[in-house]
Amino acid sequence: MALIVKKFGGSSVGNIDKIKAVAKRILDEKQPDDKIVVVVSAMGDTTDDLIQLAKGITKDPYQYTREMDMLLTTGEQVSISLLTMAFKALGQKAISLTGALAGVKTNSVHTKGKIKDIQPKRIFEELDKGNIVIVAGFQGCDDLGDPVTLGRGGSDTSAVALAGAMKADVCEIYTDVDGVYSADPRIAKGARRMKEITYYEMLEMARLGAGVMQPRSVETGRLYNIPIHVRSTFTNKPGTIIREEYTMEEKEFIIRGVAHDTNVAKFAVLGIPNTPGIAHAIFSKLAENNVDVDMIVQSIRNMEKNVTDMVFTVTADDLGQAKQIVDKVADELNAVAVLIEQDVAKVSIVGAGMLGNPGIAARMFKALSDANINIDVISTSEISISCLIKADKIKEAVNAIHDEFFKD
Amino acid sequence: MALIVKKFGGSSVGNIDKIKAVAKRILDEKQPDDKIVVVVSAMGDTTDDLIQLAKGITKDPYQYTREMDMLLTTGEQVSISLLTMAFKALGQKAISLTGALAGVKTNSVHTKGKIKDIQPKRIFEELDKGNIVIVAGFQGCDDLGDPVTLGRGGSDTSAVALAGAMKADVCEIYTDVDGVYSADPRIAKGARRMKEITYYEMLEMARLGAGVMQPRSVETGRLYNIPIHVRSTFTNKPGTIIREEYTMEEKEFIIRGVAHDTNVAKFAVLGIPNTPGIAHAIFSKLAENNVDVDMIVQSIRNMEKNVTDMVFTVTADDLGQAKQIVDKVADELNAVAVLIEQDVAKVSIVGAGMLGNPGIAARMFKALSDANINIDVISTSEISISCLIKADKIKEAVNAIHDEFFKD
Repeated sequence: MALIVKKFGGSSVGNIDKIKAVAKRILDEKQPDDKIVVVVSAMGDTTDDLIQLAKGITKDPYQYTREMDMLLTTGEQVSISLLTMAFKALGQKAISLTGALAGVKTNSVHTKGKIKDIQPKRIFEELDKGNIVIVAGFQGCDDLGDPVTLGRGGSDTSAVALAGAMKADVCEIYTDVDGVYSADPRIAKGARRMKEITYYEMLEMARLGAGVMQPRSVETGRLYNIPIHVRSTFTNKPGTIIREEYTMEEKEFIIRGVAHDTNVAKFAVLGIPNTPGIAHAIFSKLAENNVDVDMIVQSIRNMEKNVTDMVFTVTADDLGQAKQIVDKVADELNAVAVLIEQDVAKVSIVGAGMLGNPGIAARMFKALSDANINIDVISTSEISISCLIKADKIKEAVNAIHDEFFKD
Repeated sequence: MALIVKKFGGSSVGNIDKIKAVAKRILDEKQPDDKIVVVVSAMGDTTDDLIQLAKGITKDPYQYTREMDMLLTTGEQVSISLLTMAFKALGQKAISLTGALAGVKTNSVHTKGKIKDIQPKRIFEELDKGNIVIVAGFQGCDDLGDPVTLGRGGSDTSAVALAGAMKADVCEIYTDVDGVYSADPRIAKGARRMKEITYYEMLEMARLGAGVMQPRSVETGRLYNIPIHVRSTFTNKPGTIIREEYTMEEKEFIIRGVAHDTNVAKFAVLGIPNTPGIAHAIFSKLAENNVDVDMIVQSIRNMEKNVTDMVFTVTADDLGQAKQIVDKVADELNAVAVLIEQDVAKVSIVGAGMLGNPGIAARMFKALSDANINIDVISTSEISISCLIKADKIKEAVNAIHDEFFKD
């Protein structure tokens, strides 16, 4: 007997036939004693359709975050009820639970909620009755009982957090790719599927733009030490297992993957008087508004006048909000100018192996240089190196770097 | 200051422009100190669209009543969020509440739920913060917190019950007609709008098919003694007020209205041995399955053999379910046959005034007879008389009877 949480995303349940296929596939794979919890997203375009409706009411509906959550949580509620009916029509006992009914408790930061706690009592009760339990991903409720969505990557996070709270054997994430690759296979010709990857490496890959998994869900898996099996909706082949440590012999590449991210915008706040606390002034305001800042470089522009420039990147989605905040702070700091660049992208290499290998960064920069690609900003972590480049060079950059490290 | 519950049906919020218009209209009419609760249904065709989705999964999705409720309650959740955004976009503080969040507690009879209790604490809190509160009609939750829909007429019932629980000054039901008429104005040429009608009369009109108001909601209004103002979504004219007693001088017609209902199916269970308890055997089974039985006639077919026929009508919507039950019971009772007729309709007159006027029934039958319309079954209540006739004669029947009683 295994307790398995399976998560299917919006494209896996994009229409009625796909929903039926998901139900059938789960039953085909199910061992008699398995206890199964299925977490699903909204059907395909549902969320976009709902946003369009809201935009008919007002140009910027996301200013009404609570009402957006009230609206958007209906998307998963539709898919859980339909998938549950599909199980029942196949003779399988099943029941649907919204995030709230599944015991997913969140804070009250609407549209960007975070899970505070999961109380899976009802889920266990329903499993004990022989039900497959179908839970709405991407959502929970706050202390008032109001629906709250978890923001980007929320469905994976729901699934992994549920698996953690229930001490499941594994959390299976079904997606349209069959695992985690050494680079985006749509871009890098030689990209290879990895059988295993550690939480830390996956976390870094995800943080740096590898679209397969959102960092939040990987981090949640790490916290609860739940193996995450990333696999294809469309085949039965095993995918990639994300876990604490490698369990099998696998030729260890020094780097594990090349990640890239085009959803990036760059700010340059120029000519700020270089007094203590200016970094705090800018970044605390952004943090208060839940805008994540990524690469940060501060450089002295004019030593005599003691004036500095601050360059940093944010997710392009947050550009509008970030601009308002940065303009205001820059004004207060008497900055000379705020420049924004949107045609930028980030390419990164990730691997725990690079810690003891000082030559890795040089090889990456050389690969870019050989491909005639300028590096704008560089940032590093313990297990990654990232370069900001022009967005239109990203494909060449990924291939050049991937060839450098993965070509045997 | 007045505390007003306003209910808008699906056609009133059928698209984005209509939703905006509803918000604007409510604000135009609102006095500064008024506290307003708005109950809304799902947008126009939403419920039908959701049912179609479910029918893609399985031919008879209504067998999965809990999942249908999970699915269908999303319809109102979409409309409350959009209407709330429309208020906010007009600068009005507003908040949406699902049935569950509004404190509407139901039993667990999914798709046909009944309100057990309303705990309007959250609504009052939100009103006190200066919000217009927008509540999802047609729904509540049971003791598990699972969503439950209230079945036919549920939105009106939600609104009136909320008004009752909150001791509101009035419950305004906005609809596509501008009040209650002496007969369906689409059918009866001389139909007149009534300024007032009593709960009892309206109840009887509604029970007998007057589509403006569902009996449940009128009954709820009577229980809580909440005046119900039935008025048009599209004009500011006063409509009809349903209340305990008439408050103004109005020429009292002996009958208040002519109702009709084409959503009727007739069962005839023929040749049942006439032993005690046969009525109970049939009707208790139907009641257990929440099938309402309306007109009932039992007639002795053969005195010597002591064999009887049982004729009764049900809502046509319940025909399939009723047939299963009746066939089974008829078999157990050794009945000779079960006949079903669907091309029947019911025409009725309603009025508290008919109590002391024995000639009223005779005038009704004569009007039908003069119009050459056969009467199949007759039933009476204290304040109504109903005749079952062929469905294709219903328009003639309504006009003939309306002319008889309302032509000055």
